[in-house]
Amino acid sequence: MPAQLIALDWGTSSLRAYKLGPGGQVLEQRSLASGIMHLPSEPRLIAGVHCSDGFELAFDSACGDWLEAQPHLPVIACGMVGSAQGWGQAPYRNTPVDVAGLGQALHKVRSLRGVEVHIVPGVIEQVGLPNVMRGEETQVLGVLQSLPAGGELLIGLPGSHSKWVEVVDGCITHFDTFMTGELFAVLSKHSLLGRTQKSAGQFQAEAFDRGVQVARSGDGRRGVLSTLFSARTLGLTAELTAEQQPDYLSGLLIGHELAGLPDRARTTPIILVGAAALCARYQRALARCGFSHVSLAQAASERGLWQLALAAGLTQPAIEA
Amino acid sequence: MPAQLIALDWGTSSLRAYKLGPGGQVLEQRSLASGIMHLPSEPRLIAGVHCSDGFELAFDSACGDWLEAQPHLPVIACGMVGSAQGWGQAPYRNTPVDVAGLGQALHKVRSLRGVEVHIVPGVIEQVGLPNVMRGEETQVLGVLQSLPAGGELLIGLPGSHSKWVEVVDGCITHFDTFMTGELFAVLSKHSLLGRTQKSAGQFQAEAFDRGVQVARSGDGRRGVLSTLFSARTLGLTAELTAEQQPDYLSGLLIGHELAGLPDRARTTPIILVGAAALCARYQRALARCGFSHVSLAQAASERGLWQLALAAGLTQPAIEA
Repeated sequence: MPAQLIALDWGTSSLRAYKLGPGGQVLEQRSLASGIMHLPSEPRLIAGVHCSDGFELAFDSACGDWLEAQPHLPVIACGMVGSAQGWGQAPYRNTPVDVAGLGQALHKVRSLRGVEVHIVPGVIEQVGLPNVMRGEETQVLGVLQSLPAGGELLIGLPGSHSKWVEVVDGCITHFDTFMTGELFAVLSKHSLLGRTQKSAGQFQAEAFDRGVQVARSGDGRRGVLSTLFSARTLGLTAELTAEQQPDYLSGLLIGHELAGLPDRARTTPIILVGAAALCARYQRALARCGFSHVSLAQAASERGLWQLALAAGLTQPAIEA
Repeated sequence: MPAQLIALDWGTSSLRAYKLGPGGQVLEQRSLASGIMHLPSEPRLIAGVHCSDGFELAFDSACGDWLEAQPHLPVIACGMVGSAQGWGQAPYRNTPVDVAGLGQALHKVRSLRGVEVHIVPGVIEQVGLPNVMRGEETQVLGVLQSLPAGGELLIGLPGSHSKWVEVVDGCITHFDTFMTGELFAVLSKHSLLGRTQKSAGQFQAEAFDRGVQVARSGDGRRGVLSTLFSARTLGLTAELTAEQQPDYLSGLLIGHELAGLPDRARTTPIILVGAAALCARYQRALARCGFSHVSLAQAASERGLWQLALAAGLTQPAIEA
């Protein structure tokens, strides 16, 4: 089946490439470690030219063969590839932002093969503390495609820098970022807390739930700077084993993140998007914190990229037989 | 002038040794990097014995010559040296604890020279989340010595793991630990936030104050996991220079720590103990957060150790002429 679009989800640490067919169906997909902070550096020939540019090299590895086979395939990309450190800077769009309309604002970079890569702009919120996203706006659009139009919802995108995005009638009206995943990683690797942790091999549900509960408790109101030390002291008092400490810390941090959501989140439908194991943790913690309307969405990036390509006229919708 | 006591403040990363004379006056003091996690390992002769024990080696470097000159000087030590990873484990005392009474509970370790090292027990709180201190209890006693007896106060000991200790009539009734200093260090060294930071060479007061203000603001109520990202985004929007980012982060974290203090702290006298530059930051942040009764204490460890040695009968008070 001939492809209609190459869609790239190109972040800081990874690059996922999709070859999409009629209606946006995924014909083939690849995952590379060539995020914009981990680009390849070994020079090689691309389209007959000696090339040492990391973006070109990664792009060629991701989809060079697809373009050999179909040289006129349109290409769209979202994520940090559009940042100041990226391949080409796609300026941020201010909130409130109609996500479907981002297809009208793609930024073009011409690759060595002569193909234009269309980069989706990120979104910035400048009311109060500034906040930015790159890539999540596309996932939001992908989520919206599978839902009835209109209404309010809260989309949670857990990760190194978790985003919580408020959507009203297809517009991103507000979002927050929580550095939960990165904090978990640096504390586990580089702080005192990591010294007594051992990997358990499997999810320690009781320890995780306890962490969530502590974050919600009166102790939790002093803030995470205070409750963090309990990951150490509960070990000293033999209430947590070394194997339980990582999931306790995970539950504690996720619990504090959820405590930072606005009150109205309790009555708004919540949709989680992200890695399955991480979304399962958030779903569990949300249930324990009394958030009742929670569901999961899949394949949000590739669906969003397809929709943006349609909006930009880069590809055509499937024609009903 | 003959010495009366050797007093050691022996923590995780450093060892401070004091030779104290009549009335606890400091005759000589030394600072070594031989904290219990950084002990020396080069074997050598101590008191005619070939020795490779890190505690013995560090102890000998700290005060071996003082003991050569006066072999019967009593020795007292506080800090992590009394932990499970220390030289000898001095079991924790439960809150509420009369700090002056800790002198009755010293744990003895006999050194190679035959000298007994008297180790001060730490304090544990087991109401709610467990909390522990080792060394700070001695500083608290040192602070109390310079004050009229009785009454309530809050003693702040900023550091890697800041302690806030509530004292009522000479007893530690409650305390909290905030991992503020360690979090600042690991975020600056190992997270995304560190990548755009530059050292300014001098204190960036405006950026620090802004961090404190954000922690106190409506944005701050979402918690530090959320506001942390502003250390990045305020750089993206050119509201913070690279040189301002470290002190912004410092103010932000300290501000969140202070937001975790109990409401009654606003009307309780507060005394800060610790490194001068760090205490100055806390004093500034406290003033901006509306804490009005704040003062500083000096030489708390050596004063506390002297008092505990008196209480234990290891030394005698100065005799009035």
